[in-house]
Amino acid sequence: MQSKALAQLTAALHRLPGVGPKMAERLALFIIRSSQGEVDQLLSAISQAKTKIRYCSICFDFTEQDPCSFCQDATRDQSALCVVEKHQDLLALERSGSYKGRYHVLQGLLSPLEGVGPEDIRVQELITRLRSGAVEEIILATNPSVEGEATATYIAKIMRPLKLKITRIAQGIPRGGDLEYQDHVTLARAMDGRRELDFR
Amino acid sequence: MQSKALAQLTAALHRLPGVGPKMAERLALFIIRSSQGEVDQLLSAISQAKTKIRYCSICFDFTEQDPCSFCQDATRDQSALCVVEKHQDLLALERSGSYKGRYHVLQGLLSPLEGVGPEDIRVQELITRLRSGAVEEIILATNPSVEGEATATYIAKIMRPLKLKITRIAQGIPRGGDLEYQDHVTLARAMDGRRELDFR
Repeated sequence: MQSKALAQLTAALHRLPGVGPKMAERLALFIIRSSQGEVDQLLSAISQAKTKIRYCSICFDFTEQDPCSFCQDATRDQSALCVVEKHQDLLALERSGSYKGRYHVLQGLLSPLEGVGPEDIRVQELITRLRSGAVEEIILATNPSVEGEATATYIAKIMRPLKLKITRIAQGIPRGGDLEYQDHVTLARAMDGRRELDFR
Repeated sequence: MQSKALAQLTAALHRLPGVGPKMAERLALFIIRSSQGEVDQLLSAISQAKTKIRYCSICFDFTEQDPCSFCQDATRDQSALCVVEKHQDLLALERSGSYKGRYHVLQGLLSPLEGVGPEDIRVQELITRLRSGAVEEIILATNPSVEGEATATYIAKIMRPLKLKITRIAQGIPRGGDLEYQDHVTLARAMDGRRELDFR
């Protein structure tokens, strides 16, 4: 007979994203076999993160101090605002070193099928922020998925009256990609977005 | 800049088995976005399981009460003792409904390469248990892997003086398997272990 506490831990772990029943069982048994010190470390990391981390009141990224370090950093270009879906996307852009402006994290994408409307993501906060700010260009950097495209189009539409420069990150064939294996939408986008080479 | 609490949570999750850096990040962000109630539920499940679950002092399976329900169950055959590597193996055998005796959980397998010797698994406890007991048959049900075979051979050897019946679970082609795709060891074992059909 299974222990009740073990079943409850397995169920709690199974609720985490990407954790199937087998993996939940494996994690649960690993936790039970770990030393009390290791378990305490895990417990403290979870509760500390949950307690300390909140949304930045300006860009809505996760942060321990409000405003976050990006919003406080005076060396970052205040005239550019990059709109992303989530924290991980912001981190990926930062790692690329290709952008030095400010961010706005939507914390989601529009998805009528899943019942996610504009009021469920940080769009209203984006509008408020733009009205008061020094932003000249909005870079829409949501993923080129159905939801990402819909969200970018929606934001572009409601931003139009503000008379700002609105751009969308480029779509095309990724580095190392093979034309042979690209889907037709990617190929069409790559073709549409072609640029003249400059040999100077 | 990454939050320190977030980095610590990601690191703590990354220490779990099968959780890579990307998945750790995803789990950490999921936890932060969860409600306080959900996080409290997870925290309590972890600490409850760690506090309540211990090794059964007889069979060394995980249990909340000592001795465990298997060892206390008088309806289970005391003359048969099935030796398995870990809790999950015991559960798999129980699900198969093919065994109604007692268990002994080694909590590991011999692995000289990883420095796991007989003193690191519950072999000594198995010997002690057999000396005092009513066991007539030991079924060695470790996996047919290098470590599982080595462990079974080792146990069979040290058990020999006890004059018990020592058996090993059968190896062969799994149900639904195709001879064409079986490795030569499996085929050899299936051939060696062939049994006469009984048409009565």
